[in-house]
Amino acid sequence: MRKFRIVVAGHGALPESLLATAELVCGQIGDAVAVGLAPDESPDRYADDLRAAIGRDGAEPGDVLVLCDLLGGTPYNVAAAISRRSPRVVCLAGANLAVVVEAALAEEPLADPLIERLLEVGRTGIAESNRHRAHRAS
Amino acid sequence: MRKFRIVVAGHGALPESLLATAELVCGQIGDAVAVGLAPDESPDRYADDLRAAIGRDGAEPGDVLVLCDLLGGTPYNVAAAISRRSPRVVCLAGANLAVVVEAALAEEPLADPLIERLLEVGRTGIAESNRHRAHRAS
Repeated sequence: MRKFRIVVAGHGALPESLLATAELVCGQIGDAVAVGLAPDESPDRYADDLRAAIGRDGAEPGDVLVLCDLLGGTPYNVAAAISRRSPRVVCLAGANLAVVVEAALAEEPLADPLIERLLEVGRTGIAESNRHRAHRAS
Repeated sequence: MRKFRIVVAGHGALPESLLATAELVCGQIGDAVAVGLAPDESPDRYADDLRAAIGRDGAEPGDVLVLCDLLGGTPYNVAAAISRRSPRVVCLAGANLAVVVEAALAEEPLADPLIERLLEVGRTGIAESNRHRAHRAS
């Protein structure tokens, strides 16, 4: 049983697709929500959407992992600003499908060991097939 | 002007969303197509779809970069098998939005320097916001 909420943040329909596709891979994912930035949406409006999905301190005080699509993009910038002010919110950028699946299946607390593992899983999951085969064979 | 075709391969609607969202970030992307594996689709049927998108040798002999959503997933396994048999097809797994955008904007040939850069861009784009800020400040 996961101990934190997942919010997938990003541009357009990508957050919703990442979450839906992760469910194709690992089954239904509870306590997770996708928040997409519409092409004409302001950063302020998006920040309101994201804060609502995260849950304000006090009302829903659990930990939240925000998985963003692109380092330096508006969804990431907004989420990183929220994370900076709230120790219960962790913001990770550059999420690929491996990161979303690994986070969805996590059972440990949202703390350094898990964060390091998510970064590692995401990065090692980026590979070119011939190099990957050669590496495994060596 | 890009010198190779891009095929985004993956589960469900994710390939289409990755491509559409990359276009939100960097503008229209020419000579690119998304091929999603439907939940009830067989690997053989998917291989046919992917080969059609890649273009068979002879008819469309250009280089093709296949960006897959998940290392070890069916779309990746199918694409890696095609790449193994065809030197003009490069298969990269674990694509996040940064990889798709970088590939879309690439102007050099589909060769080792570009492949290494795509791997690097994807991996360094996976970051936790507080670590990323601390790293940039140091």
